[in-house]
Amino acid sequence: MARKIVVIGGGAAGMTAASTARENGAGDITLITEDEHVAYSPCAIPFVVEGKIKDFPSIVMHTPEFYRRERGIEVLVKTSVDRVDADAKKVITKDGRSFDYDSLIIATGGTVFVPPIEGRELKGVFPVRWISDGQAIMDWLPSTKQVVVAGAGVIGLEMAVALREKGKDVTVVEMFDQVVPRIMDKDMAHLVQAHCESHGIRFVLGSPCSRIEGEDRVTGVTAAKAHIPCQMVIMATGVRANLRIPEQMGLEIGPLGAVRVSPSLQPYRKGRLVPDVYLAGDVVMCQSAVLAGPTMSQLGSTAVRQGRVAGIRAAGGNATFPGTASPYVSVVGGLHVAGTGMSRSLAEYYGVRVAEAVVKGSSRARYYPDGKDMTVKLIADQESGRLIGGQIVGGEDVTGRVNWITAAILDGVSVNSFVERMENAYCPPTSMVSDTVNAAAEKLARVLRG
Amino acid sequence: MARKIVVIGGGAAGMTAASTARENGAGDITLITEDEHVAYSPCAIPFVVEGKIKDFPSIVMHTPEFYRRERGIEVLVKTSVDRVDADAKKVITKDGRSFDYDSLIIATGGTVFVPPIEGRELKGVFPVRWISDGQAIMDWLPSTKQVVVAGAGVIGLEMAVALREKGKDVTVVEMFDQVVPRIMDKDMAHLVQAHCESHGIRFVLGSPCSRIEGEDRVTGVTAAKAHIPCQMVIMATGVRANLRIPEQMGLEIGPLGAVRVSPSLQPYRKGRLVPDVYLAGDVVMCQSAVLAGPTMSQLGSTAVRQGRVAGIRAAGGNATFPGTASPYVSVVGGLHVAGTGMSRSLAEYYGVRVAEAVVKGSSRARYYPDGKDMTVKLIADQESGRLIGGQIVGGEDVTGRVNWITAAILDGVSVNSFVERMENAYCPPTSMVSDTVNAAAEKLARVLRG
Repeated sequence: MARKIVVIGGGAAGMTAASTARENGAGDITLITEDEHVAYSPCAIPFVVEGKIKDFPSIVMHTPEFYRRERGIEVLVKTSVDRVDADAKKVITKDGRSFDYDSLIIATGGTVFVPPIEGRELKGVFPVRWISDGQAIMDWLPSTKQVVVAGAGVIGLEMAVALREKGKDVTVVEMFDQVVPRIMDKDMAHLVQAHCESHGIRFVLGSPCSRIEGEDRVTGVTAAKAHIPCQMVIMATGVRANLRIPEQMGLEIGPLGAVRVSPSLQPYRKGRLVPDVYLAGDVVMCQSAVLAGPTMSQLGSTAVRQGRVAGIRAAGGNATFPGTASPYVSVVGGLHVAGTGMSRSLAEYYGVRVAEAVVKGSSRARYYPDGKDMTVKLIADQESGRLIGGQIVGGEDVTGRVNWITAAILDGVSVNSFVERMENAYCPPTSMVSDTVNAAAEKLARVLRG
Repeated sequence: MARKIVVIGGGAAGMTAASTARENGAGDITLITEDEHVAYSPCAIPFVVEGKIKDFPSIVMHTPEFYRRERGIEVLVKTSVDRVDADAKKVITKDGRSFDYDSLIIATGGTVFVPPIEGRELKGVFPVRWISDGQAIMDWLPSTKQVVVAGAGVIGLEMAVALREKGKDVTVVEMFDQVVPRIMDKDMAHLVQAHCESHGIRFVLGSPCSRIEGEDRVTGVTAAKAHIPCQMVIMATGVRANLRIPEQMGLEIGPLGAVRVSPSLQPYRKGRLVPDVYLAGDVVMCQSAVLAGPTMSQLGSTAVRQGRVAGIRAAGGNATFPGTASPYVSVVGGLHVAGTGMSRSLAEYYGVRVAEAVVKGSSRARYYPDGKDMTVKLIADQESGRLIGGQIVGGEDVTGRVNWITAAILDGVSVNSFVERMENAYCPPTSMVSDTVNAAAEKLARVLRG
């Protein structure tokens, strides 16, 4: 009884779900997407703009034709879903076609949230989400000397560096009084900001863009009551879940503005699980592995992990998506910026009393040439001594280390246990004999002892 | 009642123990070492020979005078201990001095094991252990065109690359039929060998050096019944614990030829713990975190971890050294070679039935330029599905990833749980969206399902 599957959405979550369903014995699989491309990583767009990656076609891993031929997945691009009839188990497209399903996967993703300010519709104002956005930014560049990036999250900073590399005069405007707000604490964020400033990027913090100026084309931005002239505005103001289809289906939306799901990635309607419907990616509200409360995890890696679970489930198999620590990494002008679990500021927002320790080390032994600074912050729950967060800013070899901290967080390891048990591999060209992560854990254990 | 402490040995274990004891409220601390230097990493010697690190003085982190002045640790260099009177709690040196202790730390380390073959005493035959060895090798280089390295473990390979970089004609001779024997499986070791061969290094495998030839100076080596002309032989044939003092004290020696210790790092005499005596470093036989049986972990990182525990204990505090997964990393001609837990071959030697999976990925997204190949092997206990080992060979960012796998092994995570729970941070310049480690875990889960 191979199941007939419809997937709505062709991003990382949808494509992974479709491919995984295929590997797990699904029957017919139809994937419907509004985009003209599938299977690319929006995370790559800033690096194409910067010129690190050659062009946009190279970030598209596979074509619709590839999925049809190699994986037996029918991909309908530039196709909008009008509605889902969950009782009749049908998806109806805006062009009037109807697709029966045994299992439905909703991976409608998110859209850049553009705040409702004056001038947001002017020419020269761009979100960063689709390849078409990236291409539009590239096309607009020649007529631009000054750029304002609205939002100092990692995408905003990556875009700021990219445009600076292109010789533009770049100002980043951020509502919060720090870069990488919420997920990185101010002390660590300051290292990132200083690095960007050394690349010639200016910051206006603690104040949003209140107005975009211009007649037809953008000519400037107002922020912190000052006028910043510019010919381009990049909107890196966060992503909101695309809820049209879930709302039309009557699915329960969680307090963070995305669809509430069970560990099986099924949605709820009137308090009950909706059978044969699974969600994955930016449209989903996750459970925090640290707090067991709701959290958002709008990351490509999370989309893939959820897509895998949704695909297995949709095909009739068994898998679950448990709580998330949402590890992330970004490369901002050569600086690796990463974090996992809770930041101090977020933990305190949620009412958790925390202890923290910061250690500055190096990616190599002190005497080994070309070692890069590596600053590690670890955060513990004050009461239980459990490790709940980590942040790393460094010049190399950061990704594996943040995954390492993530493993400890997900396993509920206490700081004392980390100190006692967590061994590190050592070689002068790749680490200090006691890794900076271990040194941070030791310092945090001392802080917890008081 | 601050404790008076004597430390025997000035390597990573001894120095860490002394410094940690100081931080934990010890009284007088005297450290006795036969070497003229303290506080350096023997792991750095090949990189000094190669020229990556400027010179030998730069790998010495601190002088004896620094320890005296900054940490109140009396360091006696070039001083040999004659015997320990554990009943009277006294250390007696060969020059006739006597030192009382409340706590004794034994960190006498290990010595390169040179097999008892003909010609081992000839001029031009060098172990790699002390700075004086490294300096002697450097001094001998000008009169050398051809070198034989005996032993294809990581130190042997690092030395082979170093000497090749110096323009020498290098042959590595190894008794086992693969490089990095025991700790790395043959399939992964083959990648390392091929990389070395691409640097122009030759290998004679499956046969030890049976004879070193020459009158006064070495002129060649016999291996696999062939004559290999050379003017220098590097002995990288493994390290044996220095047991003179432990044996004189009547401490129990374990089946692997090093001192058996409790998790408190105390030795045994006639089946009972010896009070106020702690051991750390290469002289210690460890417990395997995977097998709960004996294992050796002669690594700088382990020495530091044990030194920390010994120092805390000696000062009267509480800490333990639990089972070890012994993660290691080496950089061999730019290739990062790492492993943790058990190799397949070692697990099978110990009678464990295993499953394994190997995945070849990249250190970056496929489309991001300059990504380096990364091959990950994971090994599970067939019965329980528990992750018990990992090996990585790759061009960058390997160290953090092997620590990540180590955390999962030490926490007893099953492969299925790794797949379900272990998240990875993603950014195109630093990883694939599903990290190669995650991909290997998924493949291994499929293998385990059969």
